[in-house]
Amino acid sequence: MSSGASEADAHADVASGLAVPLPVVHKPKVSFCQACGNPTKEVVPDGEEKVRAVCTVCGSIHYENPKMVVGCLVEHNEKILLCKRKIEPSYGLWTLPAGYLEIGESAAEGAVRETLEEACAEVEIVSPFAQLDIPLIGQSYIIFQARLKTPHFSPGPESLECALFALDDIPFDSLAFSSVIVALKMYIEDKNDGNLKFHYCTINKRR
Amino acid sequence: MSSGASEADAHADVASGLAVPLPVVHKPKVSFCQACGNPTKEVVPDGEEKVRAVCTVCGSIHYENPKMVVGCLVEHNEKILLCKRKIEPSYGLWTLPAGYLEIGESAAEGAVRETLEEACAEVEIVSPFAQLDIPLIGQSYIIFQARLKTPHFSPGPESLECALFALDDIPFDSLAFSSVIVALKMYIEDKNDGNLKFHYCTINKRR
Repeated sequence: MSSGASEADAHADVASGLAVPLPVVHKPKVSFCQACGNPTKEVVPDGEEKVRAVCTVCGSIHYENPKMVVGCLVEHNEKILLCKRKIEPSYGLWTLPAGYLEIGESAAEGAVRETLEEACAEVEIVSPFAQLDIPLIGQSYIIFQARLKTPHFSPGPESLECALFALDDIPFDSLAFSSVIVALKMYIEDKNDGNLKFHYCTINKRR
Repeated sequence: MSSGASEADAHADVASGLAVPLPVVHKPKVSFCQACGNPTKEVVPDGEEKVRAVCTVCGSIHYENPKMVVGCLVEHNEKILLCKRKIEPSYGLWTLPAGYLEIGESAAEGAVRETLEEACAEVEIVSPFAQLDIPLIGQSYIIFQARLKTPHFSPGPESLECALFALDDIPFDSLAFSSVIVALKMYIEDKNDGNLKFHYCTINKRR
């Protein structure tokens, strides 16, 4: 396991669930009403405290909420499956198979789907492993421990390459996101302790 | 603890993370483009598999994703804090303090905020307790175990009443949502076992 600046940064910025709230002010991104197509304006609706995009004609309030990113820590023969990204952001860097949860699926189903899409790998969920909130970008990563159903995988359309890495060989200097760094470090610590457990934490970085 | 039909239903419909994917087809709800205000059409964008609302003029794709509902199981002197809802849906029924996560806050921060808003109670998070996915309505409940910082609470604007309930007195026949029923039953089972742990499950109901 190599040791780069990115690891230290990620660790320094990981806070517990008890962290002091961040001074984040979200600026509404909905310029036109989804319901009637007229312009919105930024106002604080009656009985609320936050600025929302509210339609100037029909009055619809457009709430914007964080998104869930679901993915898998796939184990096979004491190794972990990683995908080299074929898309931006972080083109060419390694990541866990993960992506946005869709309406109509559970987080576990979404994580299995993303692993099939990005690594053409059929996996079964073993256990929830971590929730990593990233408030600065409105994302929450839900990562499951999983295992390959069959020892087959290959890069999907969004991956340049997929490979199994022994824990000592994980390319920490070439990982795509702080969430991936944090999840893999937690996993390695748990494996060294002989005790895989569920983790919850907040990452105070933008990526 | 009373035993009503709603409890049995909730149990029967709770599946593990390994559940067979549901035949849910999400119909896009974005009729007009958020970016330019022109009408959208329902199409499957290139390289994707799902129908999305795509702007007929600027081509913006409008993704719709599940929302996170964050809340607290607040303990005080072996009792649990519940709020009687002053708003629809489920007006007059009891719930855990919970609501939609906002951009810019972690799940734990959101759960603390919702508890302050709905029960005027200052709490500190003890531990993550459960993630309950409800794919049929595109929601995921993230529930934290918490405790009162001070023994004070009172109904906020969205609550008729707030009260502490001993585990034997929880009003299971008058709870607002299946997620609340499931979380409280898990909590009671854990307490009876003397082992509070993290739970992940899927609820295959609409409410």
